[in-house]
Amino acid sequence: MSGKVYIVGAGPGAAELLTVKAASLLRVADVVLHDDLVPQEVLDRIGPSAEVINVGKRCGRHSTSQRQINALMIECARRHDNVVRLKSGDPAVFGRLGEELDAMREAGIAFEIVPGVTAATAAAAAAGFTLTDRRASSALVILTAHNCRGQSLSSVLLDPEHSTYAIYMPGPDYSRTARDLLRLGLDESTPCALVSNAGKAQQQVKFLPLSEMPSITSIVAPAILVVGKVTERRSLPEFQQFLEGFQARGKSSLPMAVS
Amino acid sequence: MSGKVYIVGAGPGAAELLTVKAASLLRVADVVLHDDLVPQEVLDRIGPSAEVINVGKRCGRHSTSQRQINALMIECARRHDNVVRLKSGDPAVFGRLGEELDAMREAGIAFEIVPGVTAATAAAAAAGFTLTDRRASSALVILTAHNCRGQSLSSVLLDPEHSTYAIYMPGPDYSRTARDLLRLGLDESTPCALVSNAGKAQQQVKFLPLSEMPSITSIVAPAILVVGKVTERRSLPEFQQFLEGFQARGKSSLPMAVS
Repeated sequence: MSGKVYIVGAGPGAAELLTVKAASLLRVADVVLHDDLVPQEVLDRIGPSAEVINVGKRCGRHSTSQRQINALMIECARRHDNVVRLKSGDPAVFGRLGEELDAMREAGIAFEIVPGVTAATAAAAAAGFTLTDRRASSALVILTAHNCRGQSLSSVLLDPEHSTYAIYMPGPDYSRTARDLLRLGLDESTPCALVSNAGKAQQQVKFLPLSEMPSITSIVAPAILVVGKVTERRSLPEFQQFLEGFQARGKSSLPMAVS
Repeated sequence: MSGKVYIVGAGPGAAELLTVKAASLLRVADVVLHDDLVPQEVLDRIGPSAEVINVGKRCGRHSTSQRQINALMIECARRHDNVVRLKSGDPAVFGRLGEELDAMREAGIAFEIVPGVTAATAAAAAAGFTLTDRRASSALVILTAHNCRGQSLSSVLLDPEHSTYAIYMPGPDYSRTARDLLRLGLDESTPCALVSNAGKAQQQVKFLPLSEMPSITSIVAPAILVVGKVTERRSLPEFQQFLEGFQARGKSSLPMAVS
């Protein structure tokens, strides 16, 4: 019987910008695997009996390094009940979360993702400006200038098949939203996830290809539509069934696990 | 002598996804002005003596509504020490933060922005997928399908002058980053903000046009580069001086204020 891995966003670095949940998990963790970028004031929130391991790595240093981190996460989960994998910012934004999720799923380890404050919003808050403004900016594009493959920003952004689109307030006219996305150059088969009331008791998650979006009617606001290959992993029929079964039983929080 | 307005991200709705700082501010606030979307479990974190005002509005309902909220924020700051303006998700993402900041600056009210977990990362965490993945997606584009002007997604995204770009890991080769941004169709005069160590004691903020980016050398990682008109407001020379003076005095947190 394995323990559970909590993949936790540490936020931008100030300890007071941890979420309440992240701070609680750090207090009770048996072991914490953290990135190099997580500063001491956040690490100081870890309970005194926890084992703390710096798994810091730099882009391109070792191609096996991420595999080693994955293996360590699995090994820790087999030895301990509460494993925290602590990542700078939010885990889903330039955090190699996809690779770690694949490893957890393949090993049958239970996991849960705890989102954090991502660097872009922290920077805007600290410097005193907004990121979108109906008078000036209707889209926020999050990119990295530094990637291991040497791609330029423009080659990345001009290829809609290699971007993820997060659409806020996607309804109620999903036909129009779908039409707009096709106009951007996306294929009809592009996988999508529609998430309503994320993380709350009444959460709904629906995985579907872009072509089926016009038939959406029953999703309640607030919802987020995420469009792109990153959502594909969750469209496996067996997981969809598991998720729906869990929701039907009225659990208040979803277990982010396949085990 | 006016009080201070804390513009606080409430996160996606679960109270445990408030930041530690947001939860503390709610406990001590004299008055809380909150959006309709903020759920009861978050409002339950407000201290018992606070005045709680729902300033909920819906897009397009009244053109004066945002002005009324701005006026209420100013009025509350003149009567109370600690005013919390509580906004769903993160304030800088589709939250009309720009308009509220303008109003605070014009009225000379001290303010501070407290970032929160934005809906896109919360949705991905809850449904168990990543948003970027070096194997599949190198950019995250955050849009709204629902805006008051009836613009379509594609018209928004194909116009780089009406988008904000947040570049993670923008250095060390700022010449290349600048060249890539120009190739996207951005003008040389596009205002930018480079924020290093956001919200921490060693924070650095530099406002500059895109054309001056190749000369950047002294910014230390972790940094975020924000590109677009939204950063313009802060490039006022008097504020830049104020900010630099404050940093020079070694204060541990920046006051987001002009008063």
